[in-house]
Amino acid sequence: MMMNVPLTVGAMMERAEQFFPEKQVISRTSGGVSSFTYIEIGKRTRRLASALAELGVERGDRVATLAWNHHRHLEVYFAAPGMGAVLHTINIRLSPEHIIYIINNAEDKVLLVDEDVWPLVEKVKNQLKTVEAFIVMTDSEELPESDISPLYSYEDLLEKGDERFAFIKDLDENEPAGMCYTSATTGNPKGVVYSHRGIVLHSFALGLADTAGLSEADRCMPVVPMFHANAWGLPFAATMLGTTQVLPGPQFTPKLLADFIEKEKVTITAGVPTIWLGLLNELESGDYDTTSLRAVLCGGSAAPSGMIRAYETKYNVPFLHAYGMTETSPLVTVSKLKSYQDDLGEEEKLDVRSKQGLLVPGLEMKVVGERGEVEWNGEDMGELMLRGPWIANEYYRDDRTEEAFRDGWLHTGDVVTVDKEGIIKIIDRTKDMIKSGGEWISSVDIENALMAHDAVFEASVVAVAHPEWQERPVACVVLKDEYKDEVGKEDLMDFLKPQFAKWWLPDDIVFLNEIPKTSVGKFLKRALRAQLKDHLVIK
Amino acid sequence: MMMNVPLTVGAMMERAEQFFPEKQVISRTSGGVSSFTYIEIGKRTRRLASALAELGVERGDRVATLAWNHHRHLEVYFAAPGMGAVLHTINIRLSPEHIIYIINNAEDKVLLVDEDVWPLVEKVKNQLKTVEAFIVMTDSEELPESDISPLYSYEDLLEKGDERFAFIKDLDENEPAGMCYTSATTGNPKGVVYSHRGIVLHSFALGLADTAGLSEADRCMPVVPMFHANAWGLPFAATMLGTTQVLPGPQFTPKLLADFIEKEKVTITAGVPTIWLGLLNELESGDYDTTSLRAVLCGGSAAPSGMIRAYETKYNVPFLHAYGMTETSPLVTVSKLKSYQDDLGEEEKLDVRSKQGLLVPGLEMKVVGERGEVEWNGEDMGELMLRGPWIANEYYRDDRTEEAFRDGWLHTGDVVTVDKEGIIKIIDRTKDMIKSGGEWISSVDIENALMAHDAVFEASVVAVAHPEWQERPVACVVLKDEYKDEVGKEDLMDFLKPQFAKWWLPDDIVFLNEIPKTSVGKFLKRALRAQLKDHLVIK
Repeated sequence: MMMNVPLTVGAMMERAEQFFPEKQVISRTSGGVSSFTYIEIGKRTRRLASALAELGVERGDRVATLAWNHHRHLEVYFAAPGMGAVLHTINIRLSPEHIIYIINNAEDKVLLVDEDVWPLVEKVKNQLKTVEAFIVMTDSEELPESDISPLYSYEDLLEKGDERFAFIKDLDENEPAGMCYTSATTGNPKGVVYSHRGIVLHSFALGLADTAGLSEADRCMPVVPMFHANAWGLPFAATMLGTTQVLPGPQFTPKLLADFIEKEKVTITAGVPTIWLGLLNELESGDYDTTSLRAVLCGGSAAPSGMIRAYETKYNVPFLHAYGMTETSPLVTVSKLKSYQDDLGEEEKLDVRSKQGLLVPGLEMKVVGERGEVEWNGEDMGELMLRGPWIANEYYRDDRTEEAFRDGWLHTGDVVTVDKEGIIKIIDRTKDMIKSGGEWISSVDIENALMAHDAVFEASVVAVAHPEWQERPVACVVLKDEYKDEVGKEDLMDFLKPQFAKWWLPDDIVFLNEIPKTSVGKFLKRALRAQLKDHLVIK
Repeated sequence: MMMNVPLTVGAMMERAEQFFPEKQVISRTSGGVSSFTYIEIGKRTRRLASALAELGVERGDRVATLAWNHHRHLEVYFAAPGMGAVLHTINIRLSPEHIIYIINNAEDKVLLVDEDVWPLVEKVKNQLKTVEAFIVMTDSEELPESDISPLYSYEDLLEKGDERFAFIKDLDENEPAGMCYTSATTGNPKGVVYSHRGIVLHSFALGLADTAGLSEADRCMPVVPMFHANAWGLPFAATMLGTTQVLPGPQFTPKLLADFIEKEKVTITAGVPTIWLGLLNELESGDYDTTSLRAVLCGGSAAPSGMIRAYETKYNVPFLHAYGMTETSPLVTVSKLKSYQDDLGEEEKLDVRSKQGLLVPGLEMKVVGERGEVEWNGEDMGELMLRGPWIANEYYRDDRTEEAFRDGWLHTGDVVTVDKEGIIKIIDRTKDMIKSGGEWISSVDIENALMAHDAVFEASVVAVAHPEWQERPVACVVLKDEYKDEVGKEDLMDFLKPQFAKWWLPDDIVFLNEIPKTSVGKFLKRALRAQLKDHLVIK
């Protein structure tokens, strides 16, 4: 039979060290931009792993990070699982209350924190019940003054570490390697635990020619934070494949991203639509060379087709729509044309590519409507359900597990259609659908239509209680600065009218200066719904 | 944690049915060339699986094939593992004695046989101890007359089968799914058992952009037989990815392959060097359009760089050297340039690409010489050892297991060098190395040099016993027809002299009409050695 060799995260770093020792990780920290070879990153990772062991971290213990995208964070990505511990990435944009909850729920033993996030830790330190050591991800000179103890500088620990530390190999591939909490609509964030097996298989999935096709030749810049679903698994896969990594560090701006793309000849980058909206503005105002880019991976929420069109036609940058969630490691679908769809016209192609795409190999899906599995006709809607070796089967110590994980399937809470090619299109979150007079209206469809208007910067459509129809859509719109005094409610309504059935049109359009967003950059519809709760009743 | 979903062969066929129902399998049988969609192949596969169950095949039972590359064989590839049984592909070119041994050793319960291989079965039938049913892979009209019983026609069985048969999902991914015997230097062939896990992971490996990059857009023609290491796993991977498959059927000729490449717009093909040597001759004599080809995967033994050059420069067809063996599923290395090697000159690139290449993700290797692991300097030689989830850990019920599998590593018996990039080059089989006066001489190096000579069609160099030096090399050469009266021993010796140290030069060159080959097309050095045993002593 075949050898019983487990799939391990440590082996992925070993591959980079062995076969791509001189390939580079370019990293921006508060101290500036530096380059490291994989052989250096490997040694530093091993030093860190040995230092963590010195600090008392044992197999299965959680090692938490509050950090941006940079080489030190990458080292923790491999050091923690490489010694048998669990990498727990914490979203630095969460509220202090949620951060306290998360750290205590995960029982984190060590906390590694970026310098600029340190004030947050000072604020919550007295409520952390399990943390035995704090590490600031900097050198000793930059260590902040604090009465927290024990407090270490990252570089000091590395200096004392052992660069020949051996990664753990004799483990069960189903043991935990990583952990990430995802925001809930209400209540505390929910924890998802990633196994070695899941992370390695997911890395293979990212390298398939038919998905992201990540390869050694790529220069990969994840803009999606490393505290958000492992930056979509890219740091893991890129390391396994010997890909050059470009990590944009803290507090980046669209200008910084554009500069990095040009200077570091980035070939593939990844992030949420709001990032690409910002970058698009920057590209339009500056004079950047983006010819190195072969793919912009976009996920987290649906990208408006107008934006996809702008990237592809104005900047000749292929946009790769993807779908996933924290619970799914996250890669679930990628929207690439099938070979025979090359015959379609340009508009039809854009139509297909604006959808979320095709299920990646290794996963299973079904779409369940009110009368069972829906037909794959591009029209019937149902909730997307998923199964597979990199799909979670529970929330960590959380009784909300039962809602989402039933009968062996993850119930995503996303309403989708599936066309005859098997390509899914997200219609809405189950909870964001608008139920008007017994019929469903998709908030996302109206948003996308609004965002295709030249004057509109952002738009979010929410359900507002209505005395007669139960719910009706209200649109919240942010205009581009230059249109602020020129475009009004009526203009946008006239723009929408030809595109929708009359009863789909919003009852009102509210102009805002900004749409409130979640910590991962998605529209915070809950806040808008609260704000507009009585909007239609009073009127 | 992550869902406990096993990796199964059945799920790969389901993906083709669901997402690529109209993509095609083009299949040549003795009846001609036909096309089937994946939805048809899927239904036929399910019919076959249900028919096998009717015949009494149970979980873990071996279902054997004696067949060429065609759609029916592909259906058995998925029907047997899809119902929990084991696909056992038997090399039709083996001697009757070995076939009897294999079938009895594997305890095959059902035997599926191509029409033109049937006479072989008639010859051995009385010595098969376990076979309970014989199936000729044809329709009922073409069923041969025979006193063998029970004897079924494939298409008859399918007709009675159930096209909604459900593939088994609740299995341990480490359960056996496939089986193949590999020829031994002496004695009976040795059995290797493939697990569901190994086959699925191997399929992912074939789809990586950095290896073969197999994708939905490909039109894949495996020339390597489906009875030889699962046609290098291509039928499995191609099905999972929705790739169009072109299966060239029985008794194909170089002309038939060239016609298929042109007519079916083949993008990727795979086989041993002797196949490509034959095809090269055909391409040179005909007028074929080979522009669709993006890769010729070549493995089984080392391809001479002269041939690689001819394909690439004359026909603009990228040659992709690969390495593997039955024990390794088989993909181990692929020779693609690393991105930064693009700066090399054309000759240096060819040099790199003539090597066996870089270890694919998911495996581990070490190279062990007489003084432990060798330096990666491109010169030090050692035996290649491998570890990983698609590497075998034993021969099936065979006490030769201990020779090859020790300390958790497969000892490949291949002597290699590793350059500083980690790229391996096969120097020789341990047993084919020539030990002259206490120093090693590589037979393969001299063969490649000879095959680069315009007049040489094939060359094989073997060790011959020598009274003084222990062993000395003797070259066996087949000249191209047009050179047969023009080129002699002295010409070839003069050609070799500037390329080697004096003591590496063969003691003699023997001209033959043909080099004897193994059933999988490799030079049968054992036969040459026997033939030349006393060559140098007598002289």
